[in-house]
Amino acid sequence: MQTPVAVQPQNAPPPAEPHPLDLVSLGKIVQIREVLLRAEAAGQRVFRLESGDPSFSVAPHVLDAIAEAGRAGKTHYIPNNGIPQLRSALATKVKAKNGLEGVTADDVFLTNGAMHALYATFGALLEPGDEVIIPDPMWTEVAENIRLAGGVPVGVPVRAGEGFEYSPERVIAAITPRTRAIFVNTPHNPTGAVLSRATLQALVDTARAHKLWIVSDEAYEDVLYEPATHVSIGSLAGDYAEHVVSIFSFSKSHAMSGLRIGYVVTRAALLHDRLPKLLRCTINGVNSLAQWGALAAVTGPQDHLPKMRDEYLVRRDLLLDALTGIEGVHPFVPRGTFFAWADLDESLYARLGVEDADGLSRALAAQGIGSAPGDAFGNSCVNAIRFSFSADTKMVREGSAALRSALTGATPLGANAGAGRGPGAGA
Amino acid sequence: MQTPVAVQPQNAPPPAEPHPLDLVSLGKIVQIREVLLRAEAAGQRVFRLESGDPSFSVAPHVLDAIAEAGRAGKTHYIPNNGIPQLRSALATKVKAKNGLEGVTADDVFLTNGAMHALYATFGALLEPGDEVIIPDPMWTEVAENIRLAGGVPVGVPVRAGEGFEYSPERVIAAITPRTRAIFVNTPHNPTGAVLSRATLQALVDTARAHKLWIVSDEAYEDVLYEPATHVSIGSLAGDYAEHVVSIFSFSKSHAMSGLRIGYVVTRAALLHDRLPKLLRCTINGVNSLAQWGALAAVTGPQDHLPKMRDEYLVRRDLLLDALTGIEGVHPFVPRGTFFAWADLDESLYARLGVEDADGLSRALAAQGIGSAPGDAFGNSCVNAIRFSFSADTKMVREGSAALRSALTGATPLGANAGAGRGPGAGA
Repeated sequence: MQTPVAVQPQNAPPPAEPHPLDLVSLGKIVQIREVLLRAEAAGQRVFRLESGDPSFSVAPHVLDAIAEAGRAGKTHYIPNNGIPQLRSALATKVKAKNGLEGVTADDVFLTNGAMHALYATFGALLEPGDEVIIPDPMWTEVAENIRLAGGVPVGVPVRAGEGFEYSPERVIAAITPRTRAIFVNTPHNPTGAVLSRATLQALVDTARAHKLWIVSDEAYEDVLYEPATHVSIGSLAGDYAEHVVSIFSFSKSHAMSGLRIGYVVTRAALLHDRLPKLLRCTINGVNSLAQWGALAAVTGPQDHLPKMRDEYLVRRDLLLDALTGIEGVHPFVPRGTFFAWADLDESLYARLGVEDADGLSRALAAQGIGSAPGDAFGNSCVNAIRFSFSADTKMVREGSAALRSALTGATPLGANAGAGRGPGAGA
Repeated sequence: MQTPVAVQPQNAPPPAEPHPLDLVSLGKIVQIREVLLRAEAAGQRVFRLESGDPSFSVAPHVLDAIAEAGRAGKTHYIPNNGIPQLRSALATKVKAKNGLEGVTADDVFLTNGAMHALYATFGALLEPGDEVIIPDPMWTEVAENIRLAGGVPVGVPVRAGEGFEYSPERVIAAITPRTRAIFVNTPHNPTGAVLSRATLQALVDTARAHKLWIVSDEAYEDVLYEPATHVSIGSLAGDYAEHVVSIFSFSKSHAMSGLRIGYVVTRAALLHDRLPKLLRCTINGVNSLAQWGALAAVTGPQDHLPKMRDEYLVRRDLLLDALTGIEGVHPFVPRGTFFAWADLDESLYARLGVEDADGLSRALAAQGIGSAPGDAFGNSCVNAIRFSFSADTKMVREGSAALRSALTGATPLGANAGAGRGPGAGA
C-alpha cells in the first residue's frame, strides 16, 4: 500500500463545496424574457428590446443547400471537428477576410454556435484556478463558461467616458502569476464598443510579454457602423499567432442563430489535441445539414451584409433618438453590435420611482418593454442598462417610442401592467 | 483579511496534475476508422464494420418538415431546453411507449444527441470523486464523460457465459460510500445484450436501497430482435422514478445520426435546476430545424421500425454466419443493437500470427475490414472484438465474406495491404 497522502479519505462523503452549476445563474435577461413571453402569450403587446436574436431571415440559397443536403442523404454522422469542405472554406474565409495568415482546414473546428466554442475553448485551455482577464461589463456567459472550466474570471472595468476602451494598462495591472488568458471581444456585447487596431496590437504585445493566451470572440464582426472597421486580433500577432484563439459565428453574420453554427480557429498544438476530445464528448459533431448550409453561406454572395448594416443603422438611430435628452440617461453610440448601452443615474430612479437599474428593467418588462440591467454583465456596472435593436424595424420603432414615453414619465411606470393589451395596442 | 486556509497559495503555479482532457483518448475505433478512410480515399475497397452509423435514410416526411421549417423562418434562437412542441410530443412518447408515468413536457430536455445528454447528465449530477457503476465492456465515451464530470467510472464485468447479464449482485458488491449512480444501457453497446425486466427491477431496488441515481441510456430501444423486448427501467421505479434519468436518441430509431438529436427525461428537481444551465452554457439550444424534423419523426408514422429491424436481422445473421465455426472465435448472438461481439482466444492469435485482439483489429483494418478491439470498451475484455452491421446489407454481406476469409486464414492477414484495390475488388 502507498503512504496515504490524499487530504480526502477515499470513502468520505463528497466535499461540502457547492456544485459549479449551483454558482451559475440562468441570468436576468432570461428572467426578463420570460416575463415578456408570458405577457405576450396573454395578449399584451411586447417589445423585445432584451433579445439578441437577429430579425433577418436565412438566405434562400442557404435554405436550399440545407434541403438539398437532406435529399442527398447527408444525414449521417459527420466528422467530429466538422465536414472537411466547410473547414476548408472557413480557412479561406479567415485568411481573406480576417487576415489570419497560414490557417489551414485543420485549424478550424466547428462548434454548436459561439457559445459551444467558448465552452470548449476554456474547457480545453484552463487548469483549475487559472485566471482569465475579461472586460467588465461583458456578455454574461463568458464568465460562466470560464468558471465551469474551473477558471476565475477577472474583470477589468471599461467605461463610457473612455469609449469603453479595453485599456492595455488596466489589463496589465490585472495580470497575476495565475493569469492564463486575456479575453477580447470586439465588437463588444453589451456596449457596442469597437476596439482599435492600436489597442488590439497593445493587447497582443501584452499577451506576448506575459506568455498569455488570447481568446478572441468575434461573433459581431459583421455588425458595424461606419467608420468603424473590424480588426481580428489574430492578424496582428505575427509569430505569436499560435497563442491567439479566434471564435466566430454564423448567428449574426448570416442570421443563422437557431442553426447553431460557430467555429474556433487555432493553430496551437495543445488545442489541436484537446479540442477534438471535448468536441466529441460534449456533442459528437455539429448538425450535418447546418454545416452544408453554412458552407453555402460562407461561399455564396455576401451582399446581404451592407443591407443588414443599413437596416441596423436605422434601428440604432431610432433607439438612440429615444434615449437622447432624457435626464439621468446617458446613451453610448454603439460602433458595432445591435446593442445600445446607457449609463443611468440616481436622478432617473428618483423621478421614475424605481430603486435601481434592476428595478427599472423589471418595471419596463411589466410594460412589455425588454431590457437587460447592467449588473447582468458584471460587477461594476449596476447603474446601466442595455437595449437591443435586433428585432425588426417596426418593433424597434414602436418599442423606442414606448421606451421614451416610459423613461420621460409620459407613461407612468407600473401604472399599466394591464394596459396595452391586444394586437396593435401599446405602440 | 481572512486567515489563510487554502492549501494552494493564491499565486502558485497550477498543480502538476494532468488536464482531464489529457486523460481522454479519442479511441481506438477512431484510429481504425481513420485507417479505413485513408484506404478508401486511396481506392481500396473497405468494409465499415467498425461504424455505428445506421445506413438508412431519414424519412421523407422528416426532411419535408425540416425544409418547411426553414421556409417558415424557424431559424431563430430556440428555447434552451428545446421547442415546447417537441418536448410535449416526447413526453407523450415516453409515457405511451416507455411507460414513464407522469412525465410532462417540462421533464424533457433536448440535447445534441445522446452524447450531449450523457455529458450534461453526468456534469449536472456528479461531484468530484463520485463513483458511477457501469458495465464493463461499455461504449467508451460513457466512462470518458463520467471522468470529465469529475467522477470515477467503476466497471462491473459482464460476461458472455452469462448472456452479458448486468448482475445486480455484482453491482451491489461494487457500491461504496462514494457511489452516486448506476449506469444502465439496454440494449447494450457493445455486446448486443438486452436486460430482462427482472434484472432491471433488481437494479431499481438496489438503487433505492442505497439511495443511488440510475442513468439509463436507451439509444438502441428500437433495434431489437425477437423475442427480445425493450423495458425502460424508469417504468419500474414507482415512487423512486425521480431518481431515474432516461436518455433517448433519434440517431438509431430514426436514422438521424447526423442531425444530432437526443433527449433527457428527468423529473428530479436537482436536474431541472442544473441541466438548463449546462445546456445553455455548453450549446445554447439544439439546431431548430432538427427539432422540427424530430417532431415530425416522433409524431409521424412508425412503420419504418419493423422494416428496419427486419433488415438488421438479415445483416446480423450474415455476420454471425461468418463468425460461426471458426476456432478461437466465440460470437455472441445479439438480442438488440447492430453489434456482434465475439470473445477470442489465444489459438486464434497463434493461428493468424497476431499478438492479441488489438493486433487482429489492426491487421483487419490493413485489409479494409473495420472492427473495434475489446479493450476499447473497458479493462476486462482484452480478448474480444466488436463488429457492426449498421452498414448497408451489401457491404455487410461482402464484408462478412472478407472477414471470414481473414479469420479462417483463407486470406493471409498482412499479406495484402495492397491487394484488393480498385472498385469491386476484395469482395
